[in-house]
Amino acid sequence: MSKTTGQEFMLKTRYAYLTGSGQSQGAAPPELELPCDPAGLSIQLPEPELLPDHHVNFLELIEMRTSSRQYGNEPLTLPELSYLLWCTQGVKLVMPGSATFRTVPSAGARHAFETYLFVNRVAGLEAGLYRFLAIDHKLVAVPGIAGGSEELTAACLHQQTVKNSAVTFLWTAVAARMIWRYGERGYRYLHLDAGHVCQNLYLAAGTLHCGVCAIAAFDDEKINACLGLDGERQFVIYAATVGK
Amino acid sequence: MSKTTGQEFMLKTRYAYLTGSGQSQGAAPPELELPCDPAGLSIQLPEPELLPDHHVNFLELIEMRTSSRQYGNEPLTLPELSYLLWCTQGVKLVMPGSATFRTVPSAGARHAFETYLFVNRVAGLEAGLYRFLAIDHKLVAVPGIAGGSEELTAACLHQQTVKNSAVTFLWTAVAARMIWRYGERGYRYLHLDAGHVCQNLYLAAGTLHCGVCAIAAFDDEKINACLGLDGERQFVIYAATVGK
Repeated sequence: MSKTTGQEFMLKTRYAYLTGSGQSQGAAPPELELPCDPAGLSIQLPEPELLPDHHVNFLELIEMRTSSRQYGNEPLTLPELSYLLWCTQGVKLVMPGSATFRTVPSAGARHAFETYLFVNRVAGLEAGLYRFLAIDHKLVAVPGIAGGSEELTAACLHQQTVKNSAVTFLWTAVAARMIWRYGERGYRYLHLDAGHVCQNLYLAAGTLHCGVCAIAAFDDEKINACLGLDGERQFVIYAATVGK
Repeated sequence: MSKTTGQEFMLKTRYAYLTGSGQSQGAAPPELELPCDPAGLSIQLPEPELLPDHHVNFLELIEMRTSSRQYGNEPLTLPELSYLLWCTQGVKLVMPGSATFRTVPSAGARHAFETYLFVNRVAGLEAGLYRFLAIDHKLVAVPGIAGGSEELTAACLHQQTVKNSAVTFLWTAVAARMIWRYGERGYRYLHLDAGHVCQNLYLAAGTLHCGVCAIAAFDDEKINACLGLDGERQFVIYAATVGK
């Protein structure tokens, strides 16, 4: 019987097929982070430790987690946003030219993600699109989405939570960072890794009494266009809205 | 230029291709859990709330998380195992015939996983293979792996952490539960969902001062054979070892 797309993907990404990766052929590892325009507007984020209290009942936190699609008008503060970025992609250690160690696990510490934020309501930040520079714990403004939140909402199949949120996290995969070591099987790992990150967002936001809604139902072409990505070398893999 | 396996998978699982899912054609939803032999040995798990204290510094928990491949000889207790199962797949609510709501998020609340445990050292449990019945919060013994932990370790490409662990969690995907709603795009979601689950295991184990090592590097055919799975309708999607 012929295989479906998913069945074929699982078959062709078995370990036996993992030959000739860039690493095994002696290629240099890809950069740990995408470069950014040094002349661009960058915003240093406050220390994530600045928030008053991190003590929680962990079991309660886990049990109370749910997806929230409705948010109030109260903006997120910059320390809160900083904390959420730290908990989801914070870089604890850099091995220059080789790997980063972050607050989330990643297959082979490849950490193939670049986090983009679409900001609606964060105190002290203009609305618009930003990229998180994880190594320096900074934000950099990136050329905005022409149609703003309407266009991003449409790309997310008109899920109104995008428009209503304080901020939408958009995790993009830089495929080469993972593929360099794991070949095509790396596409499995990119998705597994994105799940780790989103779960930390749910829990970290829970400690701030913020709501989260994960979004994997999006029009790939439209959402990648919103971020100016080619959709192949770099593409949105997962997203989540946050609000109070 | 021709597409690689991963690129092709991403292309063919765009939303535009999501037509004719079982749900849209009026098919009944798959069962919420695989049935089990009612005559089989089943073990009721203690309440996950029985553990003494769940208060943690959340930021510290996130920051201290790391992958641990070495474990001591001390066994896990049954309440500890129960707590880890609850935090990773615990069923909070059942909508009979339609969906479960669990301690982790899942695309469309499809919750397509069945958790297997390969037990080496859990006080009160015989070593061997078990399946977690999430709805009843029970374990059921399943026919063992002929070669035991040696065989499972070999299936995990000889990662010794499997042999040394107190228990290995093996998350298997029942593809139909996800595909019924999302068609082939569901293979992305299965991996995203497995990431959520594993991240909760890391953090929950951290609150018990247990170590975890996620494993996605395995020989699919061997590991599915270890669990008696056909590898297509049901397959191991992710695994993790735990120990003290």
